[in-house]
Amino acid sequence: MRSGTNPRAVVLLSGGLDSATTLAIARSEGFDCHALSFRYGQRHAVELEAARRVAEALGAAEHRVIDIDLGAIGGSALTDHRIEVPTQPSAGIPITYVPARNTVFLALALGFAEVIEARDIFIGVNVLDYSGYPDCRPEFIAAFERLAQLATRAGVEGARTHIHAPLIALTKAEIIRRGTDLGVDYGITLSCYQPTPAAPTQKGQAIAGTAMASLACGVCDSCRLRRQGFEAAGIPDPTRYR
Amino acid sequence: MRSGTNPRAVVLLSGGLDSATTLAIARSEGFDCHALSFRYGQRHAVELEAARRVAEALGAAEHRVIDIDLGAIGGSALTDHRIEVPTQPSAGIPITYVPARNTVFLALALGFAEVIEARDIFIGVNVLDYSGYPDCRPEFIAAFERLAQLATRAGVEGARTHIHAPLIALTKAEIIRRGTDLGVDYGITLSCYQPTPAAPTQKGQAIAGTAMASLACGVCDSCRLRRQGFEAAGIPDPTRYR
Repeated sequence: MRSGTNPRAVVLLSGGLDSATTLAIARSEGFDCHALSFRYGQRHAVELEAARRVAEALGAAEHRVIDIDLGAIGGSALTDHRIEVPTQPSAGIPITYVPARNTVFLALALGFAEVIEARDIFIGVNVLDYSGYPDCRPEFIAAFERLAQLATRAGVEGARTHIHAPLIALTKAEIIRRGTDLGVDYGITLSCYQPTPAAPTQKGQAIAGTAMASLACGVCDSCRLRRQGFEAAGIPDPTRYR
Repeated sequence: MRSGTNPRAVVLLSGGLDSATTLAIARSEGFDCHALSFRYGQRHAVELEAARRVAEALGAAEHRVIDIDLGAIGGSALTDHRIEVPTQPSAGIPITYVPARNTVFLALALGFAEVIEARDIFIGVNVLDYSGYPDCRPEFIAAFERLAQLATRAGVEGARTHIHAPLIALTKAEIIRRGTDLGVDYGITLSCYQPTPAAPTQKGQAIAGTAMASLACGVCDSCRLRRQGFEAAGIPDPTRYR
């Protein structure tokens, strides 16, 4: 049973720029935010540390991490370590696309929402900049919302679940401006598909496993879009590139 | 790239009566069947051993198991060990309902189908006997098929993915007759929500971790439906009850 006074929302949080902005937007709309991340066999698992920082910095009510072995089905450079992450833009859907990933993540968010009696789910997908992934399009989000109505106990009982994708029509620069207005510190987020640990600090100790200690490659699709976004927004890029 | 001559299908396989029958049907329709199971924090993880046997006995091309920690979101007697499995029928949606489970499982099947270039997914849901789970209804399956069209690279490129639910309108007795006609050995399947290891064998050794060595409780919803199904079908029930 619900006890708080604010409505609850589940917010999908990767630890990157887009999901951090999405969390800030959900908070600004008055939701108690239950952040949800996935350890899914991704190369860039250090992003979970970034997600933890972001959830804390932006006042999420909680942050849960679900383990799911997407590597068992393979098919993506993000989960199959034998496939190289490309450093040049590709035509069509890139190899970093993880098959049905947003369908899987939204399905799990839907289950979590049902358990905590939340009727709102936020996801930071973005159609303009998102490298052509099919499951980042508005029609996909709309189809998932229709499915949610039929898939759950809450739906059977008449409650509507809303899938919010507040970034879906924004450029990366607009996202960065919006987040900056809401006080997001992008220095603690991590977008890179293949980050590396930072060099040892002055005291000769590497700060292992922390987002702030990770260096972005600067050349993967995700880094490139992020870099261009800060440039276009006219806002200094706090990302540490290697 | 495809090399075989038969079309490929992903078949969701729990190791229970319904999914075994579904696999037999998919095989009888000429598909090369790629069976997919989940280790999702269920109480009855021994069902995976049953799934392995069933996949082998019914000639699946392969059997993959994906680990996914649904226990992290809780909310069901099947994944939360603090909630008792009921032994009496309940009104409405029972506590053994796992929030959004079939949405999650179909999403993962969709990702797997995309990787192996399969356009057909089989799921053994059944509306008449399935204890009132919302995600076992025909309208849910239809909504997922619409979503699949929008969610994947294959869909973007124009391929249709079909979600087959061949048991959806059958009674348990009809399912059992159908499977028996197709040569399914129900003695190697396991439907119980809370199975226990069998008593020691004559040689004084328990056969741990095998479906044939597991005893069904006989009183959970799933056991009750299975029992009644064999009775109604007039076919001897090979299940070993404790």
